[in-house]
Amino acid sequence: MIKRVDHIAVAVPNVEEAARFYEEALGLKLGGVEVVEGMDTKVGFFQIGETRIELVEPTKEDTALDKFLASRGPGIHHICFEVEDIEAALRTLKERGVRLVDEEPRPGAHGTRVGFIHPKSTGGVLIELSQHPRGSH
Amino acid sequence: MIKRVDHIAVAVPNVEEAARFYEEALGLKLGGVEVVEGMDTKVGFFQIGETRIELVEPTKEDTALDKFLASRGPGIHHICFEVEDIEAALRTLKERGVRLVDEEPRPGAHGTRVGFIHPKSTGGVLIELSQHPRGSH
Repeated sequence: MIKRVDHIAVAVPNVEEAARFYEEALGLKLGGVEVVEGMDTKVGFFQIGETRIELVEPTKEDTALDKFLASRGPGIHHICFEVEDIEAALRTLKERGVRLVDEEPRPGAHGTRVGFIHPKSTGGVLIELSQHPRGSH
Repeated sequence: MIKRVDHIAVAVPNVEEAARFYEEALGLKLGGVEVVEGMDTKVGFFQIGETRIELVEPTKEDTALDKFLASRGPGIHHICFEVEDIEAALRTLKERGVRLVDEEPRPGAHGTRVGFIHPKSTGGVLIELSQHPRGSH
């Protein structure tokens, strides 16, 4: 079911400011910065081998991400695994008794379709599954 | 400086119990389980492409990991980047004004030499750097 760690998402109050550590201290190069309307977030990413660090800033108050930042401060928010078929993956997980945040896929960043698994089922880790558009790699 | 995301570490109260979700729901295969004496932890890993999910259980009370679990519950604890030369990486970061947990490398799991960067310098993310033994991949 799992092809790859697609990205590790880090909640930040400001993408450009948070990017400085990765650029100036670690020497990584900031890829595109994108506003993801459906998710009320702004994301900036660093490609590292086959995976990415994604800095995620809330663009709207009182969203789950905004509340996470307010209560826990900046830090790792979730990990995302790439899957071949997001519908099949969510269906299989539901059949296996896993609690899902999204029973149906919704649009993610970079043209993906995504669904989140509830941390209650994973042992405290918020896990996103993501299917890339056909032919995108 | 950064070659690869080496692993994502997840703090868990019990490796074998936490592994079940990854095995039974996601269909991943648990690699070796190892007690890392110098770190007072027991780790179990899932290889996913070029990176790994590492489940990390404290084997001693009042360690940083044990306190993390007590105060925040199970969840993502840190991310680890592989570097070519751990001494050079730590030295460079220090020169760039980055606050380090380890100014000198110490032994990690699987024969690695590691050093942690303080979350105060990274924007809230605990980052480990790791150098693998020569010829290990």
